[in-house]
Amino acid sequence: MKDRVYISDVASHDGKEVSIYGWLYNKRSSGKLWFLLIRDGTGIIQSVAFKGDVREDVFQRCEDVTQESSVKVTGTIRADKRAPGGYELQISDVQILQLTEDYPITPKEHGTTFLMDHRHIWLRSSRQHAVLRIRHEIIRACRDFFDNRGFVLIDAPIFTPAACEGTTTLFETEYFGTQAYLTQSGQLYMEAGAMAFGKVYCFGPTFRAEKSKTRRHLTEFWMIEPEVAYLDLDGDMDLAEDFVEYVVQRILETRREELKAIERDTAALEKVKRPFPRITYDEAAEILKKKEVDFEYGSDFGGADETIISEGFDKPVMVHRYPTEVKAFYMKNDPDDPRKALCVDMLAPEGYGEIIGGGQREDDLKILERKIKDHDLPKEAFEWYLDLRRYGTVPHAGFGLGIERTVAWICGLKHVRETIPFPRLMHRIYP
Amino acid sequence: MKDRVYISDVASHDGKEVSIYGWLYNKRSSGKLWFLLIRDGTGIIQSVAFKGDVREDVFQRCEDVTQESSVKVTGTIRADKRAPGGYELQISDVQILQLTEDYPITPKEHGTTFLMDHRHIWLRSSRQHAVLRIRHEIIRACRDFFDNRGFVLIDAPIFTPAACEGTTTLFETEYFGTQAYLTQSGQLYMEAGAMAFGKVYCFGPTFRAEKSKTRRHLTEFWMIEPEVAYLDLDGDMDLAEDFVEYVVQRILETRREELKAIERDTAALEKVKRPFPRITYDEAAEILKKKEVDFEYGSDFGGADETIISEGFDKPVMVHRYPTEVKAFYMKNDPDDPRKALCVDMLAPEGYGEIIGGGQREDDLKILERKIKDHDLPKEAFEWYLDLRRYGTVPHAGFGLGIERTVAWICGLKHVRETIPFPRLMHRIYP
Repeated sequence: MKDRVYISDVASHDGKEVSIYGWLYNKRSSGKLWFLLIRDGTGIIQSVAFKGDVREDVFQRCEDVTQESSVKVTGTIRADKRAPGGYELQISDVQILQLTEDYPITPKEHGTTFLMDHRHIWLRSSRQHAVLRIRHEIIRACRDFFDNRGFVLIDAPIFTPAACEGTTTLFETEYFGTQAYLTQSGQLYMEAGAMAFGKVYCFGPTFRAEKSKTRRHLTEFWMIEPEVAYLDLDGDMDLAEDFVEYVVQRILETRREELKAIERDTAALEKVKRPFPRITYDEAAEILKKKEVDFEYGSDFGGADETIISEGFDKPVMVHRYPTEVKAFYMKNDPDDPRKALCVDMLAPEGYGEIIGGGQREDDLKILERKIKDHDLPKEAFEWYLDLRRYGTVPHAGFGLGIERTVAWICGLKHVRETIPFPRLMHRIYP
Repeated sequence: MKDRVYISDVASHDGKEVSIYGWLYNKRSSGKLWFLLIRDGTGIIQSVAFKGDVREDVFQRCEDVTQESSVKVTGTIRADKRAPGGYELQISDVQILQLTEDYPITPKEHGTTFLMDHRHIWLRSSRQHAVLRIRHEIIRACRDFFDNRGFVLIDAPIFTPAACEGTTTLFETEYFGTQAYLTQSGQLYMEAGAMAFGKVYCFGPTFRAEKSKTRRHLTEFWMIEPEVAYLDLDGDMDLAEDFVEYVVQRILETRREELKAIERDTAALEKVKRPFPRITYDEAAEILKKKEVDFEYGSDFGGADETIISEGFDKPVMVHRYPTEVKAFYMKNDPDDPRKALCVDMLAPEGYGEIIGGGQREDDLKILERKIKDHDLPKEAFEWYLDLRRYGTVPHAGFGLGIERTVAWICGLKHVRETIPFPRLMHRIYP
């Protein structure tokens, strides 16, 4: 394959003969002409064979070749404004490596279950290409944001000895004679990291065994979690809005073509500029009350509540200071109102729900010990975490952003299952 | 903390008064002088208090403050060639947030078990800082290499329905009434990715429940796995050597200070330039025979064998074409000698062992079906994988690079346990 040219690079081969190694995406004929759409993963190029210009066997192969057959197509690159992508290939030769028979995914409509069962080849469709290229760029943008600000990547462990937010949604495994749990969040470890490196983040898969079949839940999802020493809730909200603006604007800059391919309304994304609105839990509850939503003050917001709260804003909205009861034990209580936690959730606009959860952490040893006891958590599993309050405790804060929900929002997808290459859901572990 | 200046930024505040929020790393006195070494995670700055120049209570606090107490230190930045880092802080005020008592890690020597039990605070030491900053940069370099070459990030799933390289070293979990296994490699999924996107990679944690206590094994380790459609073994080796040269040279460019801090012999790393030697399994076995090693031809190399093979080279050496029996079912047989697999292992120099394993994959449906049967693998779990050979199969190849072994080699560490923030070993799951 020394003579290979990728479709993404054809512009620098205008007028030259090249070979493309790829697959037949689609084709059409008009009598003496064959138009083969060839894809190689980096793009799609229209390749044209004129009956009189090519050998008879080559023209015959253009007729024979089927969808998703693997092919080597040789020919001359020509700039052509009418061609999709701006370049066309004038075929001189076609070699078929494998003639594909009965390719399961045809241009007709397929049901979601069928497509999910064929995820390994559904990935070849142009819509999935656009979504997963946007996902890749979102992940790059997330890393670049923190790397460029001096944060140190501190990978959190996947195997943990204890549950950080309750045991009901934990995946468990036998670990050489003892039990281990799959991480639900790297946060506690990031707190240790922040005390060592000042500013850290982790980025990896996290797991929740939620018996939930909503369009917002995966059992396995990726999360980026920054944590900063000497940071309070206000500083945490500044960081979160700075971060989300950066990611969205970067996608608008670099993935406009893909956003267009999936028909995303980019005007809604253009509005994602600082400052984002900040409202308290009480104010959010008031919104629900005014809209006559059946909501009990003091409880957590459900997905439908979040949608209604965010409806009034055309940017992500940060809801802060929830009642302590609905938040995790490690949240610091608000000194101005100890019934409230110094926490924040960021709700994406257009009904995409919570994309960020975070806040300021409890930094007082005695209070934290009491909270661990009140939550019936095994103290010995948290001794190392308590050490962070014994040895040079400082105010600190951070948050976690869920990648798949962010991809769903930026791409405008109703369900998170298309936001990750191989989704894992309650009833889906194949392929 | 609006007045905070990070130590990494003091150069742009020369002559100005700033506040550093951090911890006491160490201190020393010479009568009327206190030298406080303050760390804030981004660096360490020497801060000086003259008895006559500061208030009495401030000088007293310099005397009182203990190792790892959290402190806010205010003063004027002065360029000083004698100071470590080139800048010094002339103290005007010291505030102690928490006076730390009995900090467990003192400048004296501690045993490894003690330090590993205190990993959450051991991370604060300057040696661990250097190693983990190098790790971060290695990971960035790995991603940049593939991102800059048009590879698409395709995250592989962690939960898998079947074992790809045997079941004895698998971690298992209950998955809503069925069994799931934690991934040992994303490769099979990357093959689906390569057929869709041409060039892909995944980067995530992988798991092996090996009852192994060697210095090269973790139960949880990170791996980057590229896979390319229309690539043969030679092309795969080209890609691997290009990649490893890039990563090593990037660390020499950007992390020289950290390499110096851990006293790494950088001359050995300077030599890591293409081309790398390529030898066959047979040639490697011949080396062992000449050195009178007790090695049975046809078996896999052990860690000690790898060290002896690599001793003759001052660059990574690529050993290709192992007997098919010692390699996984998906490896393509060498058409010139079907007893051999078109595979390659890259052995790091200086006895650091295998850092890369890869090769060309079997692309023929019938042969692959037979191999799955011969290996007693459950065919139904691999139906999706076989689809990749049914629908447009092409020659393809890839490899996996283990991050922790690469960090160990580049940092010159004898044991992988210090190469990851929170190592997981057979007998270690805490903190």
